[in-house]
Amino acid sequence: MSVLKGAAVIGQSGGPSSVINASAYGAIKTALDCDAITRVFGMCNGIRGLLDDNLIDMAKEDPDELALMKYTPSSALGSCRYKLKDPDEDETDYIRILEMFKKYDIRYFFYNGGNDSMDTCNKISKFMLKNGYEVRCMGIPKTIDNDLAGTDHCPGFASAAKYIATSVMEVYHDSRVYDTGMITVLECMGRHAGWLTAAAALANVAGNGPDLIYVPEIDFDLDAFTAKVKDIYAKQKKCFVVVSEGIHDKEGTFIAEYANKNMAKDSFGHAQLGGTAAFLANYIKEQTGANVRGIELSLLQRCAAHCASQTDIDESFASGKAAVENAVAGITDKMVGFERSYDENGNYVCNLKLFPLTIVANTEKKLPLEWINETGDGINQGFIDYALPLIQGETKLTKENGLPRFVHLKKVKAEA
Amino acid sequence: MSVLKGAAVIGQSGGPSSVINASAYGAIKTALDCDAITRVFGMCNGIRGLLDDNLIDMAKEDPDELALMKYTPSSALGSCRYKLKDPDEDETDYIRILEMFKKYDIRYFFYNGGNDSMDTCNKISKFMLKNGYEVRCMGIPKTIDNDLAGTDHCPGFASAAKYIATSVMEVYHDSRVYDTGMITVLECMGRHAGWLTAAAALANVAGNGPDLIYVPEIDFDLDAFTAKVKDIYAKQKKCFVVVSEGIHDKEGTFIAEYANKNMAKDSFGHAQLGGTAAFLANYIKEQTGANVRGIELSLLQRCAAHCASQTDIDESFASGKAAVENAVAGITDKMVGFERSYDENGNYVCNLKLFPLTIVANTEKKLPLEWINETGDGINQGFIDYALPLIQGETKLTKENGLPRFVHLKKVKAEA
Repeated sequence: MSVLKGAAVIGQSGGPSSVINASAYGAIKTALDCDAITRVFGMCNGIRGLLDDNLIDMAKEDPDELALMKYTPSSALGSCRYKLKDPDEDETDYIRILEMFKKYDIRYFFYNGGNDSMDTCNKISKFMLKNGYEVRCMGIPKTIDNDLAGTDHCPGFASAAKYIATSVMEVYHDSRVYDTGMITVLECMGRHAGWLTAAAALANVAGNGPDLIYVPEIDFDLDAFTAKVKDIYAKQKKCFVVVSEGIHDKEGTFIAEYANKNMAKDSFGHAQLGGTAAFLANYIKEQTGANVRGIELSLLQRCAAHCASQTDIDESFASGKAAVENAVAGITDKMVGFERSYDENGNYVCNLKLFPLTIVANTEKKLPLEWINETGDGINQGFIDYALPLIQGETKLTKENGLPRFVHLKKVKAEA
Repeated sequence: MSVLKGAAVIGQSGGPSSVINASAYGAIKTALDCDAITRVFGMCNGIRGLLDDNLIDMAKEDPDELALMKYTPSSALGSCRYKLKDPDEDETDYIRILEMFKKYDIRYFFYNGGNDSMDTCNKISKFMLKNGYEVRCMGIPKTIDNDLAGTDHCPGFASAAKYIATSVMEVYHDSRVYDTGMITVLECMGRHAGWLTAAAALANVAGNGPDLIYVPEIDFDLDAFTAKVKDIYAKQKKCFVVVSEGIHDKEGTFIAEYANKNMAKDSFGHAQLGGTAAFLANYIKEQTGANVRGIELSLLQRCAAHCASQTDIDESFASGKAAVENAVAGITDKMVGFERSYDENGNYVCNLKLFPLTIVANTEKKLPLEWINETGDGINQGFIDYALPLIQGETKLTKENGLPRFVHLKKVKAEA
């Protein structure tokens, strides 16, 4: 096989995570160090940057500063949620991308994101193949939601899980401090899959975890929930519940929508939007008269780089690096994911594995039902065994003035 | 001065913090190692434990396990919000406490908490003095609110400040990731004083801080606020606001109350309670049509031991230790606080200093107005210079399975 010489471009897309930049940095650094790759460009705000001819020249960044990407949360290159049209319907974007590829002599295309990003990568890959332009397209996974098919787990999930479990342990202690009663309802992200919420169960390993966990894989019944909480509260004077934002009843209505149905306005005439935890906290307060606290982890859980898993950071970096190495070696049209094995001592081993983009782009992986308990309000040991190895290791994030030292990119605009 | 031989009792009161247990451990360990102190008791749930004869014997704890208190958030002995009556009105509680002191031969009383706790300590001290029972009473400060008089700062504040600044930096990155507009409103604790909210300004040291900061020391004007946000948003397509939960208008009405005034009910007939950030986020969304995200740090900011300041932990431990050492040396009726100095290189030095309980108990220290900018929506360098030394150093918290290893006390009930 002959070496394909040319430039590489990398973009980030979708919701950020604590470690998506570790993946991007793995790809960028490897590409910068690689003989076959002549130049390395970053897309400003994902595929939009490519369409708008808004690329930055990664070689113009100071290498030491660039290395801080590995520990910086969010998408350092900027992200987008732009969805490419089906090329059978509208080829405009693809023709423009081809034009840009030719303008910058781009022969390597790396796209770092979740389901939609793998779909983008897949469509571009297939279009270029069909149109006879040789470019190697590789997907680099990212999603705290952990819902990508094929791969054992997704870069970003473990760091969010570690933050969630840590915060749950801390809130557990806080919520038990008074001799008076307290019910706590904490909400994690996860519209369709319960992976992040299940991570709260990791706190039970240390004996500081929730009493009840509700995930979207199981229909939520408000009456049954209320009865459970009342029962636990009556016995312990405390009850700690963790819920997914995406829990819904058997008709498919999100519990968060209950709060807004028929809802009136505040004194300024604005509808009061609340999350799932806020609704359930209010509801349980009315039902029990207890002190109830609703807590929403919100964006914090997807950007808490200070509490990232070093295992996750290292694996994310490795996936970006492998994407470049495989592409240079002649591979295209794949996503670099993970396969798990265990060594002779039973220790977790993470192996890199390539998955077809087509499969990844069109499937959503949910929490296996056998990892949810029979009553649908707790998480089994199977999940703990799965997730615990992933959250090991403390981030090596540099601190300056007692605060994280995140990357500052110069973002020098690329010239053809 | 003759050595006062007898038992010591320590209690924790009020809202917990990440480091209140570091203070308590400083006192407990020093007391356990001290010849004059015959036994060391912990009050279960503060003064309530003393009134209810519910004490634990600290010598029965495993010393290595006990040492984990230093890094465990919340109040390991349990807390309460019980307020002692004025002894001139009702002596019942005081007589009971004296009875308990005699029962357990208690000659050292340590109370670890905020304003109300110093008031409790003060009243007990004065009552015992008046009634001729020799007991040395020392207050050990704690409050993330940083509002205790006299002392330069309060144990617990710095760790909450470090967590807030860190989280603000991370959310800053997250909120700027898309090329579309985004307004973020983040809410910190602080009903009357803006110390915690001001800590968000520390993120500006790294260039990742908020555009606007509102504290309760300045009356909040919703129209002026809206105009400011619109202006910044028009220029940057982003706007990041941090507010205290306690911001209020010039009539003294909390902004959080705006949401609930005349508010109607949801479909279940429950009033929807929202915080300040939730209200402002909704309001600004209506006013601008922008994407707006409201985030409430809630309990997370007062229990985030994983992000505690080691400076804070060490100072907290030192204040508990000094309380015992001073009491044994003959001091009573004081709180151990801090005085700041700078060495010849300009480095921050924390000196322990004793403050009269009477002063501490009845004063609330607010953020100095000169540390708030002229337009009342930002924080000046004076605060940065004050707070930055306090957040230095990363916690030495032990991790197990990738998660914090918090203390598990046996809590063996004390016998007289």
